[in-house]
Amino acid sequence: MLLLHGPNLNLLGTREPSVYGTTTLADINAACEALALAYGVALKSLQSNHEGDLIDALHEARGQALGVVINAGAYTHTSIALRDAISAVQLPTVEVHLSNVYAREEFRHHSVIAAVCIGQISGFGWRSYLLGVQALLEHLGMGRTALGTSGQ
Amino acid sequence: MLLLHGPNLNLLGTREPSVYGTTTLADINAACEALALAYGVALKSLQSNHEGDLIDALHEARGQALGVVINAGAYTHTSIALRDAISAVQLPTVEVHLSNVYAREEFRHHSVIAAVCIGQISGFGWRSYLLGVQALLEHLGMGRTALGTSGQ
Amino acid sequence: MLLLHGPNLNLLGTREPSVYGTTTLADINAACEALALAYGVALKSLQSNHEGDLIDALHEARGQALGVVINAGAYTHTSIALRDAISAVQLPTVEVHLSNVYAREEFRHHSVIAAVCIGQISGFGWRSYLLGVQALLEHLGMGRTALGTSGQ
Amino acid sequence: MLLLHGPNLNLLGTREPSVYGTTTLADINAACEALALAYGVALKSLQSNHEGDLIDALHEARGQALGVVINAGAYTHTSIALRDAISAVQLPTVEVHLSNVYAREEFRHHSVIAAVCIGQISGFGWRSYLLGVQALLEHLGMGRTALGTSGQ
Amino acid sequence: MLLLHGPNLNLLGTREPSVYGTTTLADINAACEALALAYGVALKSLQSNHEGDLIDALHEARGQALGVVINAGAYTHTSIALRDAISAVQLPTVEVHLSNVYAREEFRHHSVIAAVCIGQISGFGWRSYLLGVQALLEHLGMGRTALGTSGQ
Amino acid sequence: MLLLHGPNLNLLGTREPSVYGTTTLADINAACEALALAYGVALKSLQSNHEGDLIDALHEARGQALGVVINAGAYTHTSIALRDAISAVQLPTVEVHLSNVYAREEFRHHSVIAAVCIGQISGFGWRSYLLGVQALLEHLGMGRTALGTSGQ
Amino acid sequence: MLLLHGPNLNLLGTREPSVYGTTTLADINAACEALALAYGVALKSLQSNHEGDLIDALHEARGQALGVVINAGAYTHTSIALRDAISAVQLPTVEVHLSNVYAREEFRHHSVIAAVCIGQISGFGWRSYLLGVQALLEHLGMGRTALGTSGQ
Amino acid sequence: MLLLHGPNLNLLGTREPSVYGTTTLADINAACEALALAYGVALKSLQSNHEGDLIDALHEARGQALGVVINAGAYTHTSIALRDAISAVQLPTVEVHLSNVYAREEFRHHSVIAAVCIGQISGFGWRSYLLGVQALLEHLGMGRTALGTSGQ
Amino acid sequence: MLLLHGPNLNLLGTREPSVYGTTTLADINAACEALALAYGVALKSLQSNHEGDLIDALHEARGQALGVVINAGAYTHTSIALRDAISAVQLPTVEVHLSNVYAREEFRHHSVIAAVCIGQISGFGWRSYLLGVQALLEHLGMGRTALGTSGQ
Amino acid sequence: MLLLHGPNLNLLGTREPSVYGTTTLADINAACEALALAYGVALKSLQSNHEGDLIDALHEARGQALGVVINAGAYTHTSIALRDAISAVQLPTVEVHLSNVYAREEFRHHSVIAAVCIGQISGFGWRSYLLGVQALLEHLGMGRTALGTSGQ
Amino acid sequence: MLLLHGPNLNLLGTREPSVYGTTTLADINAACEALALAYGVALKSLQSNHEGDLIDALHEARGQALGVVINAGAYTHTSIALRDAISAVQLPTVEVHLSNVYAREEFRHHSVIAAVCIGQISGFGWRSYLLGVQALLEHLGMGRTALGTSGQ
Amino acid sequence: MLLLHGPNLNLLGTREPSVYGTTTLADINAACEALALAYGVALKSLQSNHEGDLIDALHEARGQALGVVINAGAYTHTSIALRDAISAVQLPTVEVHLSNVYAREEFRHHSVIAAVCIGQISGFGWRSYLLGVQALLEHLGMGRTALGTSGQ
Repeated sequence: MLLLHGPNLNLLGTREPSVYGTTTLADINAACEALALAYGVALKSLQSNHEGDLIDALHEARGQALGVVINAGAYTHTSIALRDAISAVQLPTVEVHLSNVYAREEFRHHSVIAAVCIGQISGFGWRSYLLGVQALLEHLGMGRTALGTSGQ
Repeated sequence: MLLLHGPNLNLLGTREPSVYGTTTLADINAACEALALAYGVALKSLQSNHEGDLIDALHEARGQALGVVINAGAYTHTSIALRDAISAVQLPTVEVHLSNVYAREEFRHHSVIAAVCIGQISGFGWRSYLLGVQALLEHLGMGRTALGTSGQ
Repeated sequence: MLLLHGPNLNLLGTREPSVYGTTTLADINAACEALALAYGVALKSLQSNHEGDLIDALHEARGQALGVVINAGAYTHTSIALRDAISAVQLPTVEVHLSNVYAREEFRHHSVIAAVCIGQISGFGWRSYLLGVQALLEHLGMGRTALGTSGQ
Repeated sequence: MLLLHGPNLNLLGTREPSVYGTTTLADINAACEALALAYGVALKSLQSNHEGDLIDALHEARGQALGVVINAGAYTHTSIALRDAISAVQLPTVEVHLSNVYAREEFRHHSVIAAVCIGQISGFGWRSYLLGVQALLEHLGMGRTALGTSGQ
Repeated sequence: MLLLHGPNLNLLGTREPSVYGTTTLADINAACEALALAYGVALKSLQSNHEGDLIDALHEARGQALGVVINAGAYTHTSIALRDAISAVQLPTVEVHLSNVYAREEFRHHSVIAAVCIGQISGFGWRSYLLGVQALLEHLGMGRTALGTSGQ
Repeated sequence: MLLLHGPNLNLLGTREPSVYGTTTLADINAACEALALAYGVALKSLQSNHEGDLIDALHEARGQALGVVINAGAYTHTSIALRDAISAVQLPTVEVHLSNVYAREEFRHHSVIAAVCIGQISGFGWRSYLLGVQALLEHLGMGRTALGTSGQ
Repeated sequence: MLLLHGPNLNLLGTREPSVYGTTTLADINAACEALALAYGVALKSLQSNHEGDLIDALHEARGQALGVVINAGAYTHTSIALRDAISAVQLPTVEVHLSNVYAREEFRHHSVIAAVCIGQISGFGWRSYLLGVQALLEHLGMGRTALGTSGQ
Repeated sequence: MLLLHGPNLNLLGTREPSVYGTTTLADINAACEALALAYGVALKSLQSNHEGDLIDALHEARGQALGVVINAGAYTHTSIALRDAISAVQLPTVEVHLSNVYAREEFRHHSVIAAVCIGQISGFGWRSYLLGVQALLEHLGMGRTALGTSGQ
Repeated sequence: MLLLHGPNLNLLGTREPSVYGTTTLADINAACEALALAYGVALKSLQSNHEGDLIDALHEARGQALGVVINAGAYTHTSIALRDAISAVQLPTVEVHLSNVYAREEFRHHSVIAAVCIGQISGFGWRSYLLGVQALLEHLGMGRTALGTSGQ
Repeated sequence: MLLLHGPNLNLLGTREPSVYGTTTLADINAACEALALAYGVALKSLQSNHEGDLIDALHEARGQALGVVINAGAYTHTSIALRDAISAVQLPTVEVHLSNVYAREEFRHHSVIAAVCIGQISGFGWRSYLLGVQALLEHLGMGRTALGTSGQ
Repeated sequence: MLLLHGPNLNLLGTREPSVYGTTTLADINAACEALALAYGVALKSLQSNHEGDLIDALHEARGQALGVVINAGAYTHTSIALRDAISAVQLPTVEVHLSNVYAREEFRHHSVIAAVCIGQISGFGWRSYLLGVQALLEHLGMGRTALGTSGQ
Repeated sequence: MLLLHGPNLNLLGTREPSVYGTTTLADINAACEALALAYGVALKSLQSNHEGDLIDALHEARGQALGVVINAGAYTHTSIALRDAISAVQLPTVEVHLSNVYAREEFRHHSVIAAVCIGQISGFGWRSYLLGVQALLEHLGMGRTALGTSGQ
């Protein structure tokens, strides 16, 4: 499983803590790794401020990772290239956001990658990541919950 | 904890199963109730096709419920009255959707209630509800995960 | 067959007669019932000012009625919930309007239910209803006209 | 009574039958003629791919025809000239469409002629024409149905 | 005279007091009733979170009430059905708002009912209601002020 | 207290009386002056067709007047300079209009000064002014009505 | 000099006389011909409901006519092809309209040919044509007025 | 007859001569005065850079002038106050422009005064003014041309 | 193979040569014919300023031509009727333009026929036509290039 | 000559073959190289998922390459920086696309680089590249076709 | 050199000091005058709340001043007349703003005068003026900095 | 102090000199360095065509630089990621542009970074940079000018 972080997320825990809390990216990566491992799945994480690096990482995950959890940061709102990469590698992808993007500036309300992801989780701080990892595992049929036949 | 379902969700499991799966609303209510109980919290659920009923239910939850998980269905996109109700009762509220609304018609991409909720979970079928209940419990400090200081 | 009337249509025959004529809703219901009966089909009619009531009535018609003729009144322009209900119950539905909505205020030019109905008939006063009932019966293959193979 | 068909409708029955069926324009003209005759009214039909021909035909109908049934095809969405012609000749005009235009591409949702017609009938395949002829005759007071005083 | 209150106004005095003050709806109703009585006019008040209830109440006021003072709350911005009801019952109607809606979110700047009311009063807290009752009485020629011939 | 009238209002009583009535601006000024005096407050009035004069008058009112009642006429819709003046002088200001601007041309529906005023009163002819003076006095705590604690 | 009339103008004098008067197109052609002749210039006129005919006529005027006066009727608002024709033949062209198009429906406010004409004259009934002929002659330096150096 | 010139037109003949020519405003005023006198009508002209001055001049012309020819300059595009003044004084008004405004920046394509004028003449340099004076005189029935019954 | 030219292209080589060059339409037709013949395919060409003629020509090509190369000129931007014709005759169609339409006025940036063509070639002057003929032949499998399996 | 490929094109032949075919980027590069060599021109190709790499490559081509063929992938729709690079290096540039972008999602219909390229070729799969190379060579006067004087 | 201040700037130092500081307009004028004098240039300053006064002042500066520094206040966003004046007098003009207008309300983000000025300086409080004076002097070649050949 | 240059600025002095002059980036860097040093402040400069490099450089400047002067080139209009970086590192940042962006294409009028910078300087060629460095130093209280208390 690949955990991708977009631009400026490396500053997490130090950048505008009133908005994003003091938890660092390393904390989040470790917690997600632990959660995935509890399901028997390895998790690799990557952060980059470079749009191209995120795309490269998705390409490399083809045939390697079971799926992707991504917080694309500001590229969420502008990167059709990232959208095409998600669509092209055909790995189930979960979009997460730390903050409730719908309670912030209007230009943060639109995600160009949303339509090619399985689903979105936003607004729960670092917990959005853990919920995202869990949601992806469940989607892959590796979760612990079962309830009839799920729809689309 | 209050679990609210908006219009047409009573048909779940029978309505357009290729989109929403065969799980019924009763199944979902039972699973959410069980999950909440596992955290020691009672969960009450209500479905209505009437905008006013959903508002009345939110009003009655004031001072009673710890928080709300809501799938407002089509009212998600049109009901400012529901938004005002969520805002007025001042209970932490999680917005959930069965399908990935961003992969459907454009008019389903905008939620008028999103800005007054804590966060959103969409696209994971009935699992969106369970993730929503879990997210709300974590937000209330009743969850089992802890990781530094959460941001907004 | 279900004949549904939306908000304010109960005032028909008394409300703004220069726009809608003096024919009452009871007159229209009786005429439609008679027409349907002439084809051997029972017709049940309902008017409500409550969006939720109209949705409830559609739900109840599932597996009962052969189809629906609906004048959703002002909900035509705003109710995605009603659209979802029509779509969910999967009954062939004909949208009718008394007046030519395209010759009135701009906000009356858009119907959010049109895309999930079979077709539309507007502008012929109470005759729109009778034409609607007839069109539905023909669509169901119960009419008296036949002409090659109809398209979509 | 004049029955006008706009561009590409001459291909009817051969063009995209999955959308428009196999009934030909000749079939429709004959059926409409028969229906009108049953009311004692002569019906003349014309198809053209030329916007100007349709306008010329409307001009010639002044003082000759009792009214017009028109499927303006693609000119429905673009021809203000046709709108002005309908308005200028002051003949009651019914707008018909084979398919439910509101379930197709967005640019087909707007009719520039709708506001100057009596009413619209769309989505019932070739039956839209027959319903249109009938609606026009009823509007002219030559129909067989009577029900109080009709509104606008 | 009918005094109508829309959704969430039942929470007045308890909901977001920094925005709406601590005066309750009962206080307002009593004050308006007293003011109307001082002019010799009975005032009946109703609050509902149900769009349909507000429409029903307007219908019942036909031929009974002299006029209407309405704070439609969130339905102000979305309910064409309510607009049609006000227009249909043909009672002089005054639109009031507690807060200055133009200093709040953009979606609160547009009122779909404004064009069919006599006038608007907004921004004066509970005083908006009293000014509204007074304005309606003056409009009805029952006030105490006179000054030449008023325009539209 | 300052009573300001914008462009063309000097023609009142003679300009389009079917829209604005025959009451002159002098009549209105006198009535407002009398009303304010009844509360023990002096009222000074000014009309100008010059945007700059209205701004100058607001500047001069700083530290002199208790508040402002303004009908900015057409400048309501275009003058950011006037808005800035109202905001800068920090006097409580009530916006009034003779006609129901929402029932007129679309470009009259937007007020650029509304957000920096206390509230709006429109549609009651010359009575809008008297209600405006009264509303301002009440807002200043100089009125005769009292009812709990008013909100924003 | 070429005088071109677009769609529906052949009905002039009979079509909606309250809007366009009772003067016929023949009257206008004769008056324009007489006016041009008084300046020693021959004038040829053509009316067509066919966009292509108007374009053909412009092409034929190349190298023949001194300039063009055109009332393109509804094609004014839609025909880029006509605009390209005017631009291509490089004859000075004056755009005229009988009615004040800015006082009619919004879709009549935009002219796609205006930018490639010399100027516009609208709102003076049949006099718009005569003023147009005169303006073109003056522009060509054949008029009787002289006043310094004209700008663009 | 009043001839009004808006902002910056005093620079005519010196300002951007490649756009406006070298004819001065004094030249134009003299020529228009001479033309009007030839019809037995006195013409008074005024130029101002002040929106309020133009409005004042229109007010003063009430009951004095037979009509108005106005080149409102940049106020053409922004001044609703000027529009209201033209509408209020109820004098027939002709809008003129030196240049073809439709061939310049997009913000010059819209005139807020057009709908309340009789008609427009633009693009003929100083000749636009002379044509405007002539058009007004003709409209007033003082011209030398007659041709049946003019329309609106 | 059919080569279609829309309005004003008959002027090619004489119209605005700085934009379109001095090559005439006859030159282009001859060159395209020669190129097609080199592949063993006959090419028929037609130019018309009449939208209806272009549609008629497409209809006649059904079952006759292998495909279509079309420069629809200004109808590219406005003719839904032409789009429907291309779609209806179901012949592979290549859209070509002489100039780079994206470097010209904004209204030339949108093609209403693009979505129903195979592809577009624009900006290469008369070479756009030759490239278009070649592209169509290759698409038909009659070209001389081969490279794996082509996608959509 | 430089052949540039934007983001995700490295996956060609493996990514969504139903849309893009099974031809790989290496196949295309080889075929283009061979075609260019046949004209005696060397072709260098580069693919990158990094916007900055594409800009760097364009800068390096200044004074080296004769021209550029570019499929900018998703950066076509978003990268003003790429547009500025194309404009700055002043090399003739041809824009190509594998698929008909106008038949896909609306956000793919707009190219921010189109206006600074010579022309566009889209929709012919890998043949778009070969046609693009050929078009560039012809534009450079190195092709084998000659036909009068080409326009812009 | 002319230093122009638009509406409400006379209140500087007293108006909303948290936004604009306590420096008065007299302070700024004196500092700018001193700075200009240090370069040997006289500076004259003017403030007015009247749009026409600002235009008049620009006209008077023609042939007198070397250039203009202007803070047009709210007229920045609305006055095309001011834009035309700047353009007409053909003096190099620098636009300055005290606050960062892009961090305030959206309607302050657009300047109608920006395109006809040399450049803009905003956000540095009273320093914006001094930087503006300096920038103008440098632009006039009277500054003390030199560095190769400046572009546009 | 960090001086950042965005995409294509490395070509300065060679790229489109008629727009940007012949001064090279090295010239500008040297001049800015010298100016900063005159204030006792070290200046480090960086140019990159890679969005990610600019973000990385901002991150590295945290706690190192006193502030930032940035000409983000084309990323000014598209990079929310850059905006977030500026906001995150919390260093006072001045936005500069060589050309007057408001006199160029419309898509260059909007800056996504403006709202998180202190202020903007544009249109003065290489002098924009020097003015920017000076403005930043003044803002930091390190300048040589003092004048009361500055506002925001």
